[in-house]
Amino acid sequence: MINSLYRPASGGLMIELPLDQLTAALRDPQNLIWIDLSGDDAGTFQALLTETFGFHPLAVEDALVESHIPKVDDWSEYIYLVLHAVDFDHDQLDLDTHEVDFFLGPNYLVTHHTEKVAAIERVRRAGQRDERHLMRGSDYLLYELADEIISDFMPCIDELDEEIDRAEDEVFDRPTAATLSRIFTLKRATLHLRRILSPQREVLNRLARDDYAPIEDKERVYFRGVYDHLVRLVDINDSMRDLVSGTLDTYLSVVSNRMNEVMKVLTVVTLLFMPLTFLTGFFGMNFFGATYEVTAPTDGKLLLVLAVLSMIGTPLLMWCWLRRRGWA
Amino acid sequence: MINSLYRPASGGLMIELPLDQLTAALRDPQNLIWIDLSGDDAGTFQALLTETFGFHPLAVEDALVESHIPKVDDWSEYIYLVLHAVDFDHDQLDLDTHEVDFFLGPNYLVTHHTEKVAAIERVRRAGQRDERHLMRGSDYLLYELADEIISDFMPCIDELDEEIDRAEDEVFDRPTAATLSRIFTLKRATLHLRRILSPQREVLNRLARDDYAPIEDKERVYFRGVYDHLVRLVDINDSMRDLVSGTLDTYLSVVSNRMNEVMKVLTVVTLLFMPLTFLTGFFGMNFFGATYEVTAPTDGKLLLVLAVLSMIGTPLLMWCWLRRRGWA
Amino acid sequence: MINSLYRPASGGLMIELPLDQLTAALRDPQNLIWIDLSGDDAGTFQALLTETFGFHPLAVEDALVESHIPKVDDWSEYIYLVLHAVDFDHDQLDLDTHEVDFFLGPNYLVTHHTEKVAAIERVRRAGQRDERHLMRGSDYLLYELADEIISDFMPCIDELDEEIDRAEDEVFDRPTAATLSRIFTLKRATLHLRRILSPQREVLNRLARDDYAPIEDKERVYFRGVYDHLVRLVDINDSMRDLVSGTLDTYLSVVSNRMNEVMKVLTVVTLLFMPLTFLTGFFGMNFFGATYEVTAPTDGKLLLVLAVLSMIGTPLLMWCWLRRRGWA
Amino acid sequence: MINSLYRPASGGLMIELPLDQLTAALRDPQNLIWIDLSGDDAGTFQALLTETFGFHPLAVEDALVESHIPKVDDWSEYIYLVLHAVDFDHDQLDLDTHEVDFFLGPNYLVTHHTEKVAAIERVRRAGQRDERHLMRGSDYLLYELADEIISDFMPCIDELDEEIDRAEDEVFDRPTAATLSRIFTLKRATLHLRRILSPQREVLNRLARDDYAPIEDKERVYFRGVYDHLVRLVDINDSMRDLVSGTLDTYLSVVSNRMNEVMKVLTVVTLLFMPLTFLTGFFGMNFFGATYEVTAPTDGKLLLVLAVLSMIGTPLLMWCWLRRRGWA
Amino acid sequence: MINSLYRPASGGLMIELPLDQLTAALRDPQNLIWIDLSGDDAGTFQALLTETFGFHPLAVEDALVESHIPKVDDWSEYIYLVLHAVDFDHDQLDLDTHEVDFFLGPNYLVTHHTEKVAAIERVRRAGQRDERHLMRGSDYLLYELADEIISDFMPCIDELDEEIDRAEDEVFDRPTAATLSRIFTLKRATLHLRRILSPQREVLNRLARDDYAPIEDKERVYFRGVYDHLVRLVDINDSMRDLVSGTLDTYLSVVSNRMNEVMKVLTVVTLLFMPLTFLTGFFGMNFFGATYEVTAPTDGKLLLVLAVLSMIGTPLLMWCWLRRRGWA
Repeated sequence: MINSLYRPASGGLMIELPLDQLTAALRDPQNLIWIDLSGDDAGTFQALLTETFGFHPLAVEDALVESHIPKVDDWSEYIYLVLHAVDFDHDQLDLDTHEVDFFLGPNYLVTHHTEKVAAIERVRRAGQRDERHLMRGSDYLLYELADEIISDFMPCIDELDEEIDRAEDEVFDRPTAATLSRIFTLKRATLHLRRILSPQREVLNRLARDDYAPIEDKERVYFRGVYDHLVRLVDINDSMRDLVSGTLDTYLSVVSNRMNEVMKVLTVVTLLFMPLTFLTGFFGMNFFGATYEVTAPTDGKLLLVLAVLSMIGTPLLMWCWLRRRGWA
Repeated sequence: MINSLYRPASGGLMIELPLDQLTAALRDPQNLIWIDLSGDDAGTFQALLTETFGFHPLAVEDALVESHIPKVDDWSEYIYLVLHAVDFDHDQLDLDTHEVDFFLGPNYLVTHHTEKVAAIERVRRAGQRDERHLMRGSDYLLYELADEIISDFMPCIDELDEEIDRAEDEVFDRPTAATLSRIFTLKRATLHLRRILSPQREVLNRLARDDYAPIEDKERVYFRGVYDHLVRLVDINDSMRDLVSGTLDTYLSVVSNRMNEVMKVLTVVTLLFMPLTFLTGFFGMNFFGATYEVTAPTDGKLLLVLAVLSMIGTPLLMWCWLRRRGWA
Repeated sequence: MINSLYRPASGGLMIELPLDQLTAALRDPQNLIWIDLSGDDAGTFQALLTETFGFHPLAVEDALVESHIPKVDDWSEYIYLVLHAVDFDHDQLDLDTHEVDFFLGPNYLVTHHTEKVAAIERVRRAGQRDERHLMRGSDYLLYELADEIISDFMPCIDELDEEIDRAEDEVFDRPTAATLSRIFTLKRATLHLRRILSPQREVLNRLARDDYAPIEDKERVYFRGVYDHLVRLVDINDSMRDLVSGTLDTYLSVVSNRMNEVMKVLTVVTLLFMPLTFLTGFFGMNFFGATYEVTAPTDGKLLLVLAVLSMIGTPLLMWCWLRRRGWA
Repeated sequence: MINSLYRPASGGLMIELPLDQLTAALRDPQNLIWIDLSGDDAGTFQALLTETFGFHPLAVEDALVESHIPKVDDWSEYIYLVLHAVDFDHDQLDLDTHEVDFFLGPNYLVTHHTEKVAAIERVRRAGQRDERHLMRGSDYLLYELADEIISDFMPCIDELDEEIDRAEDEVFDRPTAATLSRIFTLKRATLHLRRILSPQREVLNRLARDDYAPIEDKERVYFRGVYDHLVRLVDINDSMRDLVSGTLDTYLSVVSNRMNEVMKVLTVVTLLFMPLTFLTGFFGMNFFGATYEVTAPTDGKLLLVLAVLSMIGTPLLMWCWLRRRGWA
Repeated sequence: MINSLYRPASGGLMIELPLDQLTAALRDPQNLIWIDLSGDDAGTFQALLTETFGFHPLAVEDALVESHIPKVDDWSEYIYLVLHAVDFDHDQLDLDTHEVDFFLGPNYLVTHHTEKVAAIERVRRAGQRDERHLMRGSDYLLYELADEIISDFMPCIDELDEEIDRAEDEVFDRPTAATLSRIFTLKRATLHLRRILSPQREVLNRLARDDYAPIEDKERVYFRGVYDHLVRLVDINDSMRDLVSGTLDTYLSVVSNRMNEVMKVLTVVTLLFMPLTFLTGFFGMNFFGATYEVTAPTDGKLLLVLAVLSMIGTPLLMWCWLRRRGWA
């Protein structure tokens, strides 16, 4: 689908510019044209990008065919830019990203994305409502889009941070295999985020610092703002990764600790009852029966007292020994 | 709340400068004005910063709206600076930071912070008591504030270091789940500190090294002192992080070690008593009873002696075997 | 074996150029010659490379004798290049690489490889079918080969990624020694890939950025495309390595967790039945028999009731205690 | 305490130069004066450093008040240097460091340290015995001091290395909690050493490479020697850290291994005796007694044979099963 | 011992050059002299190096007294170089290194080593047999020596690689404490190798890249070949280190896994037999005896049947429960 916004130098705003008027509109450097290509219609898009705009075939192929990590390529009159918008499923902690390609020229901006990107929708609707968004040139429009795209990462990072807190509490309170699985999912998510955010930061750094023809010097400071935002996001994400790793280590320690507790109980119970069982077996042997039967019932009672006393004494001794070792 | 200190070129000190005299006061480069904006009154602050001082809207937005990691932005006539002051809760080991924004111009310093910052209070009170603090220009005032803010990290780092020592002792003496939880808290704190200190160090490095219009060359050496201090803090913090990680590893080893001890006791007890229990069961079977009843009591006594001897012999043999394996 | 493709400046395409015409063909800078040396015939190859082409002995030795990590050497009129093609056994996850040596001159390309390399085959067949592949000069031909060689890494990386997913699922569902062995194999594979991809990326970066005589300025942008592809591959591979390491850590945690479960069951069973066994032993001692025989059967029944009650009460008490500790 | 060595241009050597002659002595660039300030007498030292030598207040404060990691500050006519001397307690493996501050001018060297530093003592005594140590200028004197200070690290590193060897042997032979504690102490020591050695290396690198007024070009090569020495020390220390970490990992593995052995013994014993105990219990039930009493003694003997055979057969079967699993 | 090779400009080859002719021989820049100093005769060597060759005392001290990590020092007319030759004990996996010092001048090469170095022997013998080895100048001679020294690392690395494979197989098949000990030895060896190879690579990089008076520009390309070789060795060694670390982690996992198996068997046996033992004890109590004696033998038989049925039913129930949990 092709959406366009066109603000002629003469003023006014045209929401869907017919493609046959595009070449004429591009000719006046005072005009501003934003073409948003969405979906999979590669054939139509390629024709438009290659013929109407005259972009280099490699750049068009980058935009339409291959998937890329964020980057910026300088093609002198125009720049080609790849950013990634985030699409976060809060329930599944599932982090998906959509590639957005930008072609920024002196008086136009072409965006391309296969899936719907919320940030682009918002900026387009704002531009339709209020033409002032289009008054400051194509570079400012790019800034607005980049700013919206990057801002969408924040709620996703906040959610992950809370989730890490929750996982950490779970590790100390009641560690289960499900906790482990969630920690692993969180680790994956932070790894994924880093893979998206770091090159994106690098791209914005270059936009804020280097000299590109379609970006006016005085607008570069806005990209520095977006860059600062990305620096912070990367930074928080790195901390989160350290925390997730720490949580995994802690999980192991907590489980070891609990196993230690379980083993102590097992050992104490075994220590207390094994000698007792031996004693009951010992005094239960028929020899005693044989002996007392031919002697006297008093002997039997004496033996009974002896047995009971030893059965009380043995665990008491064990208990003292355990206390001395600090186990009970 | 707006607090101000004003030292006119003509001498004297005015503690609260009415805002309507501010524009006049700023005009004379020999004057020195320090405006401290604290709290949430973003509307008033924005008007003041944008209109009276004429700061760039992006810089004002950075100061009032967004939160940032420490950085320095050069806006040619003035510089915009973000530092973080620490607020340490000694009981909870809870490390909080307050963002402080600085606008440093040739004859003024504007500070902005939402929460109360102890270091700023101290410098303001010193400035009110003794006007010499304001005699050396806005850059020296900035140095004094930065120095105080950074110095406040030292007691916090000392406390963490002691806490790590304590945790480490606990790991060797009596490792519990609470120890583990404290180690994790310490890890979080050192991670947090690093996130605050490293960019702060970079900011001070740039102040000490780069050329900024509002900072005189001969004052730069003071910022180098603060920078050196930060280098040391970062360094100590890195060592602390290594130690905390080491403590976590050690925890696991200590717990494993203790479990090993517990298992040995369990195994030794089982080894000694299981054969005994078997023997009592064996000699307790009724067949012997059946046999001796039809033969003679002496047979019963013989069997009893045999049983007792085997019950003494078996654990002795086991004991020898255990000693040979080095378990007892 | 020596395969050649020859496109004279006068047009047309010659598939196997006799070696004695080679020197003449090389003389016209408008011709394009691609010589592909495959197999082990080092003697013939050395003669050809040293005498006909006049390459430096060190470069020829690099190509024919020693094995190398990917690199590019600038010998001014020509460049010497080493790339590694992947040969992936999908069943064994066995990753093998074949070294490919390139000599790129202004109007020729010499490739050398000991084993059959699929990517080279494909490009040669394409060149035989359609001479346009040879119209754009030797540098574009090198690009086509490099692009094919690098593209072959993608399916291999995809397969590894899926395998990691599978291993991870196995770790949570049913961790066995075979899982561990597979994780280790995956770790080895990602390590191996990194060893191949990183220097390869560096080589392409240099081709895309530096000035080499045989590569025209306008063709360099194509190498940048291959470089971008490699950046992404290295990036994905690094993420995979982190995931594999995480899976190994998780394995340990899952196994610990399971052992904990097993230990709990063991301890609970021991706790419930050890006291019961003691009680049966206790009430099974002959003293009771001695006693009731001389008194009355009712006493025996009383004792039986007492025994059964204590045998019901004891495990109930134990169960309550276990519930309070959260074990059952 | 203030110790001084003074070699006038006119020759001869004065061991304790009265402070009132100092200013005069400093005036002749051919003289050489070494002032060594030791102890805590900050007041006197500050007066001397600030007034007589005219050092910058910040440098004096660095020297007398704050503690620092090693660094070098260039104050154009003189340089300020911080090094750390080691003080190693061989019994406790306790590594302490003493800060030494240097002010190096064209014809003087001022050293300051709070504690006694063996390396400085040695150089001073050598200088007192033989004035040739003072013939080559203040920069060579600095070199001699730095060389001695750095050389003192070697025995300390040797001792740690041996201690690591010993700990490692212990881990394999007889791992105890004390071993663990020692490994942790070693880890701390290597961490501490790295914190001292790395910045010190950087300082010497700058002395050997950069241009400082008080250091003659031809003397710089001596500092390169000290720098090489430090490079080696840092290198050995890094290896030691890796070894200590490896020892900690190995500890865990060894303990796991031993626990595994213990568990196997426990399991084998349980496997062999639990069925036996059941069998004795089974054949010990009174029903058999009831049965044979009313039948015949031969039945009893038959049952006895049956019982004994099953008690021999069961452990034999178990043993075979264990052998097949490779546990016995 | 002093060995020398001397090729005068006039041709011919003199194997042992008398030291008193050395000064004369050095005077003609067309001559080539190689002096090899081996053993401990520091006094003689020092005189030769300092007086005859006139090397700087620091360089001579570096060569004769101190031990160094590989480095290259530029003394303008000559360069001083340290390389390390490997001496590998294949049986003990014991990696020893011998320091070799080189002084390279325009027409001479001086080598010094305390122990016998195989690579030097080989080059000397080749030079004695065939004077062409000495025709290409002192820099080419240095290249030949460096190449031989570095090539000797390859078999040692191959051996370690195989040993790692073997250790890894052992970890999965039959992990013992000896395996652990071998893994640790391998870790030490790879650490040691890295410590030797990395600075050596840096040295060769500098020889291949930087401008040194005694090395002709056209010979530098040979050092690049040695450098490439070292890059590969370092690279393989790094991979080996990762593999060794992975093997250590895997060891822990495998041991945990095996312990889990052992625990499961213990638990299953305990679960099956503990209730049985209780039942035999329960039915073995004398109360039953008391009861049936006064009633009828049929009651006894009934109880016997009941007992046997419960003893068959209980383990069956347990077995079903175990199957449901997936343990049997």
